[in-house]
Amino acid sequence: MAVSNIRYGAGVTKEVGMDLQNMGAKNVCLMTDKNLSQLPPVQTVMDSFVKNGINFKVYDNVRVEPTDRSFMEAIEFARRGAFDAYVAVGGGSTIDTCKAANLYASSPDSDFLDYVNAPIGKGKPVTAPLKPLIAVPTTSGTGSETTGVAIFDYEYLKVKTGIASRAIKPTLGLIDPLHTLHMPERVIANSGFDVLCHALESYTALPYHMRSPCPANPITRPAYQGSNPISDIWAVHALRIVAKYLKRAVRNPDDLEARSNMHLASAFAGIGFGNAGVHLCHGMSYPISGLVKTYKAKDYNVDHPLVPHGLSVVLTSPAVFTFTAQMSPEHHLEMAEILGADTRTARVPDAGPILADTLRKFLFDLDVDDGLAAIGYSKADIPALVKGTLPQERVTKLAPRPQSEEDLSVLFEASMKLY
Amino acid sequence: MAVSNIRYGAGVTKEVGMDLQNMGAKNVCLMTDKNLSQLPPVQTVMDSFVKNGINFKVYDNVRVEPTDRSFMEAIEFARRGAFDAYVAVGGGSTIDTCKAANLYASSPDSDFLDYVNAPIGKGKPVTAPLKPLIAVPTTSGTGSETTGVAIFDYEYLKVKTGIASRAIKPTLGLIDPLHTLHMPERVIANSGFDVLCHALESYTALPYHMRSPCPANPITRPAYQGSNPISDIWAVHALRIVAKYLKRAVRNPDDLEARSNMHLASAFAGIGFGNAGVHLCHGMSYPISGLVKTYKAKDYNVDHPLVPHGLSVVLTSPAVFTFTAQMSPEHHLEMAEILGADTRTARVPDAGPILADTLRKFLFDLDVDDGLAAIGYSKADIPALVKGTLPQERVTKLAPRPQSEEDLSVLFEASMKLY
Ligand SMILES: NC(=O)c1ccc[n+]([C@@H]2O[C@H](COP(=O)([O-])OP(=O)(O)OC[C@H]3O[C@@H](n4cnc5c(N)ncnc54)[C@H](O)[C@@H]3O)[C@@H](O)[C@H]2O)c1
Ligand SMILES: NC(=O)c1ccc[n+]([C@@H]2O[C@H](COP(=O)([O-])OP(=O)(O)OC[C@H]3O[C@@H](n4cnc5c(N)ncnc54)[C@H](O)[C@@H]3O)[C@@H](O)[C@H]2O)c1
Ligand SMILES: [Fe+2]
Ligand SMILES: [Fe+2]
Repeated sequence: MAVSNIRYGAGVTKEVGMDLQNMGAKNVCLMTDKNLSQLPPVQTVMDSFVKNGINFKVYDNVRVEPTDRSFMEAIEFARRGAFDAYVAVGGGSTIDTCKAANLYASSPDSDFLDYVNAPIGKGKPVTAPLKPLIAVPTTSGTGSETTGVAIFDYEYLKVKTGIASRAIKPTLGLIDPLHTLHMPERVIANSGFDVLCHALESYTALPYHMRSPCPANPITRPAYQGSNPISDIWAVHALRIVAKYLKRAVRNPDDLEARSNMHLASAFAGIGFGNAGVHLCHGMSYPISGLVKTYKAKDYNVDHPLVPHGLSVVLTSPAVFTFTAQMSPEHHLEMAEILGADTRTARVPDAGPILADTLRKFLFDLDVDDGLAAIGYSKADIPALVKGTLPQERVTKLAPRPQSEEDLSVLFEASMKLY
Repeated sequence: MAVSNIRYGAGVTKEVGMDLQNMGAKNVCLMTDKNLSQLPPVQTVMDSFVKNGINFKVYDNVRVEPTDRSFMEAIEFARRGAFDAYVAVGGGSTIDTCKAANLYASSPDSDFLDYVNAPIGKGKPVTAPLKPLIAVPTTSGTGSETTGVAIFDYEYLKVKTGIASRAIKPTLGLIDPLHTLHMPERVIANSGFDVLCHALESYTALPYHMRSPCPANPITRPAYQGSNPISDIWAVHALRIVAKYLKRAVRNPDDLEARSNMHLASAFAGIGFGNAGVHLCHGMSYPISGLVKTYKAKDYNVDHPLVPHGLSVVLTSPAVFTFTAQMSPEHHLEMAEILGADTRTARVPDAGPILADTLRKFLFDLDVDDGLAAIGYSKADIPALVKGTLPQERVTKLAPRPQSEEDLSVLFEASMKLY
């Protein structure tokens, strides 16, 4: 269980200039994406820089759903800029890109694959000290402001992977609910599904004392250590907020109470899964995003096909939790109950179907596409989807139940249609 | 909100040598008290040092309920030893002493009062970098392994005060439930009351957005920032564990499940109050301990009179929460309910008395002394007790309801007898 420094409140973003001054930063890199660069969150940050006399350069070329190539461009910018601090204003795409830029600029001799998760990369431990990074999330989803993870799409293999190290965790997260008022409907919905899956997956992940191997030396233990009594608190609490507020937040852009709560829930779930890990919905989502064909996500202001991360994780959730329920039926029933199911007369063997039905209804109520088929996949794609899941061991091994390739096939097939 | 670095599990103490090796420590200071130096927790740590080739020196002269003098002796030892890491094995007394030793040894030109809380000391901000400190708690109470606080009895003024700075927060807490099996009955009871009050006080503390002054610059904001949605989670969760397990833990020294849970609850409540703060039970406890006359605490293996910290905080709790209830009756009722009260037909104005009665019954069931009178105080002592509370502004200002000297008098008087 490790440190995440966060500050929460309407307007806390205005303090970012003072925070940088307190750190003695003289040359700051502000990262964001093209869309956000025109919106108030970025303006607020720049105003605070100016007011506090902070020198800065803007990088607004972050790719929504970043790739190795887009990471590399940001790294180049960071290396040339010789910055002494970073501020990331945006969703997970921006915060993750900024983490990578900070990491590789602080370690100039490293090759890109050095820190990428094995088996795709070399998964080397980070030893160079990084510069401070302040994350200002503008979506309510990834919790990236609290985690030591940066995810990208490795184009050559057409699969998402990432970098995972406590060293890249932001120094400070400024959780300012005012930014959530700008999110379009599908961005708040999809990023909310990411919170939902972070909570569900970390709560049902393999318990920490059952993980193997359990490296004898603490330094070689992974950041994702399995479910544990501390991450459980965050998962359950985040899930309660999702149950109470996500629908309201999606339906009414002015519901500041609902959107503020989702913004906090995103960080809570981040602290939970950042310590416990996620498993199958995330492991299977990486090829779902990576192999995207022509699907254009509504409300995402980008010029490339894209399956938003939150959508790619949630579409398999009914199938996944039906599959995992037998390992901890009480936990699965508890989650169904939090999400609104009446479990008073539930029988233990029905835990999986009950949670799956509750999820399906939740997604239907929020107008989610009807399964993988609706975003362009067919049965013929299943072998490729399975193949793209296999290298995601870092997370799939945290599933409470081991899976064969055949199991993964069945899970993808069951996710083709939801309703 | 800063979350702390903790590792939990039966036997994690054995890893301490490896952790030090990973940090590159060559010359380690092991701090503990005389009583513990003969017990298995210290032996386990030394075995791990030897196994991992860690050079170390032992300081076992920690005073139970430390004083400025006992802090100073430990600081002297630390300054002479030029250590590059510290390991504290013990209760709050040991961990707090070790924090002070690390702080002043890292800042050799400072005077003792420099970092002591104003108005008693100068309350200077800490700027020198400290050495790593690993805390291994052996009581289930203070949560000191998670906080940036070190408390001592300032003998000259006969009042407890402390040092509060994020800089002295331990680098890592090793929460090993095996150590709890050695705690005598009153040590587990009293340290459990400390957890109880940390949870109750932090949950009812002034909300963070109502605190004043609210310094414009984040760096000058205190560690204790008032109750907030994050600390609330920790407080409620810790209170639930106390309600479920404290009686079992006290009554049966072999109940590892109950004692393990209390050990975690202590850290949880520590993370909560370490961010939100405590208020009147703690503020009033400092003179209650500081002015001790002849009271000898059962089960405390020491040769001086002593009111254990947990006892000194809990004795005023029925009076304190009767006084504060009007500011947030729902919170007070919620806590009473968690502690077992039937609040279904409760009326809002009765929140205070209901919580107070619940606490009295809880304390009676656990054989707690019948109020301040039972530990040697009488009405004639009240002016001195009030006078000793006045300088505790750092915490008393976090009470949800402001208090006059007259109010404090009434609270002490109401705490003379409980049952
Ligand atoms: N690091 C982690 O721990 C972690 C966890 C989960 C997901 N991720 C990764 O994060 C990425 C997804 O991030 P995301 O879901 O936060 O979205 P995003 O960063 O990809 O942004 C999605 C879209 O929303 C827009 N947007 C963001 N905030 C807005 C606002 N306030 N108002 C208007 N428009 C706004 C962006 O400009 C963009 O077009 C994926 O790459 C995913 O794999 C990382
Ligand atoms: N730093 C903080 O955040 C914080 C919070 C609350 C209290 N405190 C301070 O902590 C001190 C109290 O600490 P405490 O309540 O943890 O107790 P303690 O450290 O004073 O120890 C109490 C007694 O229990 C013995 N003991 C401890 N662990 C044992 C074990 N496992 N087996 C057998 N004996 C054991 C000790 O030797 C000692 O005699 C006070 O000075 C108090 O003000 C600090
Ligand atoms: Fe995610
Ligand atoms: Fe305490």
